[in-house]
Amino acid sequence: MKFRRSERLVDMTNYLVENPGQLISLTYFADRYGSAKSSISEDLTIIKETFEQRGIGTLITVPGAAGGVKYIVNIKDEDAVTFIDKMCEIMAKPERLLPGGYLFMNDILGQPQTVNMVGRLIATAYANKEIDAVMTVATKGIPLAYAAAAQLNVPVVIVRRDSRVTEGSTVSINYVSGSSKRIQTMVLSKRSLETGSRVLIVDDFMVAGGTVNGMISLLEEFEATVAGIAVLVESEKAEDRLVDDYISLVKLSGVDVVEKKISVSHGNYFKRKK
Amino acid sequence: MKFRRSERLVDMTNYLVENPGQLISLTYFADRYGSAKSSISEDLTIIKETFEQRGIGTLITVPGAAGGVKYIVNIKDEDAVTFIDKMCEIMAKPERLLPGGYLFMNDILGQPQTVNMVGRLIATAYANKEIDAVMTVATKGIPLAYAAAAQLNVPVVIVRRDSRVTEGSTVSINYVSGSSKRIQTMVLSKRSLETGSRVLIVDDFMVAGGTVNGMISLLEEFEATVAGIAVLVESEKAEDRLVDDYISLVKLSGVDVVEKKISVSHGNYFKRKK
Repeated sequence: MKFRRSERLVDMTNYLVENPGQLISLTYFADRYGSAKSSISEDLTIIKETFEQRGIGTLITVPGAAGGVKYIVNIKDEDAVTFIDKMCEIMAKPERLLPGGYLFMNDILGQPQTVNMVGRLIATAYANKEIDAVMTVATKGIPLAYAAAAQLNVPVVIVRRDSRVTEGSTVSINYVSGSSKRIQTMVLSKRSLETGSRVLIVDDFMVAGGTVNGMISLLEEFEATVAGIAVLVESEKAEDRLVDDYISLVKLSGVDVVEKKISVSHGNYFKRKK
Repeated sequence: MKFRRSERLVDMTNYLVENPGQLISLTYFADRYGSAKSSISEDLTIIKETFEQRGIGTLITVPGAAGGVKYIVNIKDEDAVTFIDKMCEIMAKPERLLPGGYLFMNDILGQPQTVNMVGRLIATAYANKEIDAVMTVATKGIPLAYAAAAQLNVPVVIVRRDSRVTEGSTVSINYVSGSSKRIQTMVLSKRSLETGSRVLIVDDFMVAGGTVNGMISLLEEFEATVAGIAVLVESEKAEDRLVDDYISLVKLSGVDVVEKKISVSHGNYFKRKK
């Protein structure tokens, strides 16, 4: 069965965006549509140009017998600004304020479309780094970690606060939480991470960075290295930040509990991403 | 700036699959490309036909001034069988066996591509039901819940075992776990769910169904109703199942700890989905 160009473009676009970061051989597409490789190459040129023009991403061509094409997400700055502006606006709503100056974020983190866009932005920032896995700590960072990992085509490893039988053997560490200065525990399943992995740490919220620092200590136990740290929100009020090389989409600069005023601005995303 | 048909097809396909379940007006696309609505209609016909032919999904057209087009995922049975067969094969590997006859599943659940496919299959089964939210319980069900919710274009609500300050006011219930017969607690943030919501419950693993039953009790507290129950794996060994109307992708029919043999087969997905 033969496919027309228009049909190929639709199916290939869907296939590529559903399999980001995966090298797909031209032969695969040629067989899929019963088309010549030269036609597939032309199709891919159209897709690449459209993706780049619309600020969706790009296609990377790997030459040679083992080569092929790979879709890489790359959200353009203009769209990132629009999205982060909207996030700031939503986060500044006074009804988010909880006792103790905490912010209710479940509604934001509960929206798959929002979570996926955060994942695309994080993946855009780390697209050129070698990353083997994304790590997060249960619970709120999990959807963000998956959204980023899906785009980077790597697995997610989830650190827990407690050990469960379904985790198998685990490695656990104690760390000092940055804000409360309390000793806490983190547990990671032994089988989760290979020695030498380059790991991107993703979390929803960072105050002093104690939790992130705990994850870094845990990585050392696995002889793994930190390839990057990305958080949705960083809180500016942290006096002595334990972590300095990270990206944040949104910065929480102040919470006035009396006036019910939440001050939010852009994080360092655009500065650090370069 | 004008766009050629080929460019429109690529960008529209990407836009539709990134925004599943969302009604998009023809005017939106016409403005996006500076094209006549008649051209957009023709483009959408090509996309719809290709999606249906490839077993990706379909486009639903809503007529009238407030109308538009909506992409709905619909994985064809043939692809579902291939995927579930592969899942069964992966799950049956003896090295998964943990003390007590538990199975190590982190590696499977840690793969975003696998998780997203499970989400598409669940969404395919519930595409024609009215669903307002997807509910799961922390931790392992979370990525599956997001993957399904993304396709259904609804938010995710996460039930926890403990209450945290960032949850705001919560509703908690006690329930009896199906296998251990112990009293356990579940907590849901009050703001998470609106009264009257129709909720799809998603989880990774179901033995007797105690956890799912707990979520059902919690829904009653919110005057919400169960629109469906979907699990990745059901265990057959449960003698008295507390839940009967559910779909499962994979069925764990037996674990022989001595022989290190795990028996896995298709769940009821194909039977129940009709």
